[in-house]
Amino acid sequence: MNEFALDATLASVSHKIGILRVCEVRLLDDTRWPWLMLVPMRPAMVDLHDLTAADLADAMEDVRDCAHCLQVLVSCDKINVGSLGNIVRQLHIHVIARKEDDANWPGPVWGFGKAELYQDDARADFMAKISKELF
Amino acid sequence: MNEFALDATLASVSHKIGILRVCEVRLLDDTRWPWLMLVPMRPAMVDLHDLTAADLADAMEDVRDCAHCLQVLVSCDKINVGSLGNIVRQLHIHVIARKEDDANWPGPVWGFGKAELYQDDARADFMAKISKELF
Repeated sequence: MNEFALDATLASVSHKIGILRVCEVRLLDDTRWPWLMLVPMRPAMVDLHDLTAADLADAMEDVRDCAHCLQVLVSCDKINVGSLGNIVRQLHIHVIARKEDDANWPGPVWGFGKAELYQDDARADFMAKISKELF
Repeated sequence: MNEFALDATLASVSHKIGILRVCEVRLLDDTRWPWLMLVPMRPAMVDLHDLTAADLADAMEDVRDCAHCLQVLVSCDKINVGSLGNIVRQLHIHVIARKEDDANWPGPVWGFGKAELYQDDARADFMAKISKELF
């Protein structure tokens, strides 16, 4: 009953790469942006401040690792980090690599246009690179 | 030379309320959303992961305090937290109270429409309430 279970909508738009300190790390299935989603594996979390101080600090170290990973793997001008949850309430944190010529620069990625899905082999290749860098 | 100085654009759109563990807390001058901006008082910071682990953990406890403060003071359905920096690169963290009938729900606040400025007395009153709650 009181165990962590990934929200079905979050699951449907992303693919699991692995687990860091407290977060499950997933790749958003959208080629427009290199985009990781971190889901703290604690039950009944909605806002960042629902986490204990220790879990919040760990989650932010997970964010740090994911941001570094994207900076190593892709060319980017800025990392965007956000936890909104207006549509899906289960706590999740976005870590996104932005470029000054990307689809909605300098605006946010959320709510912009429609996801452009990866080809299976391209997604598998990118996930393998992320996994090698992170774990 | 190597001291923290608030970016002029960030200063121009917001008003200082006070200082928490590591962040200067400012009210965004936009009545559309109860919106706090936290600026970690460290020089040359751009991304969240430029902060040391200790400073990042402290900054997130500052975020926690600001989120709680907004939840106490205003009616809201969700807290949004984001660090984008696509326009102003100095590291800053947004903490925003959202309502399901607000101006751009469930989309993000960034880049949406134009700020609607507070009347001086309404802004002063809100800042006083925030200050009393936070400090």
